[in-house]
Amino acid sequence: MASNKNIFKGVNDRFHGVTVDSEKEACNTEEFPNKLNESLTHWTNSKTRCVWFKVCTEQAEWVPILVKNGFNFHHAKHGFVMMYKWLPSQEICNLPTFANTLVGVGAVVINNNNEILVVSEKFYDRPHWKLPGGYVEPGENLIDAAIREVQEETGIDTEFISLLTLRHGHFGLFDCSDMYFVLALKPLTQNIVKCEREINFCEWMDIEKYLGHPHVHDLNRFFLKKYLEYREKNIKIHCDHGIHAVVKKPYTVYHAINHIH
Amino acid sequence: MASNKNIFKGVNDRFHGVTVDSEKEACNTEEFPNKLNESLTHWTNSKTRCVWFKVCTEQAEWVPILVKNGFNFHHAKHGFVMMYKWLPSQEICNLPTFANTLVGVGAVVINNNNEILVVSEKFYDRPHWKLPGGYVEPGENLIDAAIREVQEETGIDTEFISLLTLRHGHFGLFDCSDMYFVLALKPLTQNIVKCEREINFCEWMDIEKYLGHPHVHDLNRFFLKKYLEYREKNIKIHCDHGIHAVVKKPYTVYHAINHIH
Repeated sequence: MASNKNIFKGVNDRFHGVTVDSEKEACNTEEFPNKLNESLTHWTNSKTRCVWFKVCTEQAEWVPILVKNGFNFHHAKHGFVMMYKWLPSQEICNLPTFANTLVGVGAVVINNNNEILVVSEKFYDRPHWKLPGGYVEPGENLIDAAIREVQEETGIDTEFISLLTLRHGHFGLFDCSDMYFVLALKPLTQNIVKCEREINFCEWMDIEKYLGHPHVHDLNRFFLKKYLEYREKNIKIHCDHGIHAVVKKPYTVYHAINHIH
Repeated sequence: MASNKNIFKGVNDRFHGVTVDSEKEACNTEEFPNKLNESLTHWTNSKTRCVWFKVCTEQAEWVPILVKNGFNFHHAKHGFVMMYKWLPSQEICNLPTFANTLVGVGAVVINNNNEILVVSEKFYDRPHWKLPGGYVEPGENLIDAAIREVQEETGIDTEFISLLTLRHGHFGLFDCSDMYFVLALKPLTQNIVKCEREINFCEWMDIEKYLGHPHVHDLNRFFLKKYLEYREKNIKIHCDHGIHAVVKKPYTVYHAINHIH
């Protein structure tokens, strides 16, 4: 670790990389080019592989200077942009690209009268009946997201039965791929309280009516049919929780089970 | 659309937003603040909701100027950063966050001798036998990714049998969530040609030996057990292809099937 005050300290990682956080090592724009240059010389001599700069909005003046010194963009979120420079000239840059997949959930919720919970959204250009659902929040599990979205949109409390399907597509919003998981949830309440901001209509609809309704897309019909098929054949895509052996973080693992009657 | 030369044209979207691409409307840094100001006045008057600037490395000087004018970072990739400013003061900003999920695949490949294809990776700090696999490329389907990774790492050609499991975790690499899908693939060839850059050892290992091996993580053992269970109970998580009814783009949909013997 360099003790020289004119060199960025950063935080080292196990891939022989270093990350400088502009908030933790703020310096003014006049001093920055010189300090960057001395640091790059130091890192090159010490065989650092990748140099990362997390540049917060407050230090946005650093961005064009970093670009002039061979840095490029890697990813960004509200508040910062992460820039990087690969130093080894003899080794190809094998950095993973950033996340490229948006994850959403929908829920098939069917009550004891064989009625399915359906919504018609505001901000949609044609008549439709869809499944309640929405985007998964960062750090959120699929089941929690589906239960939350159903609650927010319809006021119905639910619990998990099974994962049903995964739809996977590409080149959508922000040019990302998207994964849309449909889950079967069991309703614990019946009284609909719809979200006024997002939902125009919400109702319990007879499943036969839903299967034949002209304002239901084929794929939504398919999700309901899969629900009925899983129920009939007693198939479930169930989930277990565990702790990852290497990274020591919690995970959820989904897998199919089938208990023959 | 403004015809005034001192206003950015941009491209309008259906959410009453506008996106300016710095490569397509390049202007020099001296002129930029003034042109930005006049454009913001125009967009505010015309009830534009979100203003997006895709700033390429060549125009990195724009970044601090945009920040001074209330823009923030949304996402970035090699070559550009996407910045945004939400204009309506009476409406909360409801922009979706960018993708936050990394997607990887692993493969359970078992031959007619009940042997499983296993690898030991370079750049790993302890002895281990794992499933071949890796990250899914942007725009790539899970099945294609698994077949490609098995080919690259082991030289074995395979075809799809079934999706087996999904492991979902959070706060990993780049602080992203990750989804790791394990697929069952059928080997079409037997002769291993391992990837010298990534793989130390690769072999066909008897499945009983794998299930009892001290250098196999519990979760990898679980994946193999699920393979055997699906085979015994004739469960498959199968896939169909379709075209999305609204966005008119291809999708793949995965769902469990169970043909009773």
